[in-house]
Amino acid sequence: MSKYTTLYQHGTLALLVPGLLSGTLTMGDLLKHGDTGIGTGEGLDGELIILDGKPYQVDSDGNVNEVSNSFNMPFANSHFAKYSPLAELEDVSQDYFEEQIISLTHASNTFFSVKVTGSFSNVKTRAVKKSVPPFQTLAETAKNQSIFTRDHVEGTLISYYSPKLFDGAAVGGCHNHFLSDDHTFGGHLLDFHLDKGDVSYQLFDTLEQHLPIDNKAYMDHDFSKDNITDDIHNAEG
Amino acid sequence: MSKYTTLYQHGTLALLVPGLLSGTLTMGDLLKHGDTGIGTGEGLDGELIILDGKPYQVDSDGNVNEVSNSFNMPFANSHFAKYSPLAELEDVSQDYFEEQIISLTHASNTFFSVKVTGSFSNVKTRAVKKSVPPFQTLAETAKNQSIFTRDHVEGTLISYYSPKLFDGAAVGGCHNHFLSDDHTFGGHLLDFHLDKGDVSYQLFDTLEQHLPIDNKAYMDHDFSKDNITDDIHNAEG
Repeated sequence: MSKYTTLYQHGTLALLVPGLLSGTLTMGDLLKHGDTGIGTGEGLDGELIILDGKPYQVDSDGNVNEVSNSFNMPFANSHFAKYSPLAELEDVSQDYFEEQIISLTHASNTFFSVKVTGSFSNVKTRAVKKSVPPFQTLAETAKNQSIFTRDHVEGTLISYYSPKLFDGAAVGGCHNHFLSDDHTFGGHLLDFHLDKGDVSYQLFDTLEQHLPIDNKAYMDHDFSKDNITDDIHNAEG
Repeated sequence: MSKYTTLYQHGTLALLVPGLLSGTLTMGDLLKHGDTGIGTGEGLDGELIILDGKPYQVDSDGNVNEVSNSFNMPFANSHFAKYSPLAELEDVSQDYFEEQIISLTHASNTFFSVKVTGSFSNVKTRAVKKSVPPFQTLAETAKNQSIFTRDHVEGTLISYYSPKLFDGAAVGGCHNHFLSDDHTFGGHLLDFHLDKGDVSYQLFDTLEQHLPIDNKAYMDHDFSKDNITDDIHNAEG
């Protein structure tokens, strides 16, 4: 397993659906598996982005906070960055982003990451408010989300693409988080329009899928009654 | 990632469905990820089982062959064995095996392996005949299978359990291969009745899913039209 061709994932999107929102991995441990990543905190505590080894959280007040090594997460991705240039893109909206990326990478049957740095004419993000036990379902918890918009912002988009076959474990398709260069704005991307940006990519041949087997609630849960893929795409789309 | 808590998987069951049967990993490379495993050869060339670091193939004539390091596979699992005793079971048929194992391990939400050594009153296996390019679909290729039965046989069963969420990538539920102690009989298990056996198990917290990203046919394939889970369970059930 090569360091630069492995995507690490802790937890699954599926476990968020019924509200298994306990933190089961620390940021310190996540950083052992990469210097770049995305995730969410215990109780869906904000939206995380890791850039150059530094983790940031966008909370539901819209603040961008540095994240300590003891911060706990139910779900996260990370990898060691070694991006290659893919394209310089202009005038692309989120609706066409995935299509263009797939067309350029020709890699829809494997996992990969895309990084975009540039100028965005409009960015719309969300961050969920942290909930406390007893946790509700993903659909209920995600209702307590804040939506933020900003025009004319310079920043970095980190995207992880997963093949449709892994929908449920991951988000099939692109999962995009954002952080502005001035570290005052970011979150889970709901919509954006890229004016001009440098797009780079990194293909993975390996998904290292880690599961929280020491968490009793996870091991005890009966997933057969959860409407996993619909709920994920409603909440994460 | 701990050596003994990781299940390695090369390829997916899904890629076999449309007939992406080229060998994309050598046995030598598979053995770097484990001393115990199962798999199939290029063109569905027989059924593989690895015990104590030694790989065996049951071919469609029913012969048990040793496998060279250069042997190529489209799909395989391996792990480093460190099984713990689970139970001594008597008088169990395949229909109740998975249910009993789940009840004993309480681990249906993670990957694990089960090893059974003992006396079987009846064992029914199959091995597919190797096909050559241009490969047909899994359903077509698997029609050229031989079915073998043996009564009163001592042997070893290796099972890999995958959570239903990963159905398609793996076989959701148990995937069982068999080899007799005298190395004259084995294959993919279709049915069995265990008289008496020692059952041991090994839990994994990590799936290391490796994909054949250097295989053009794999990367080019449009999986959206394949009826993946139905075809897998018809062929692998």
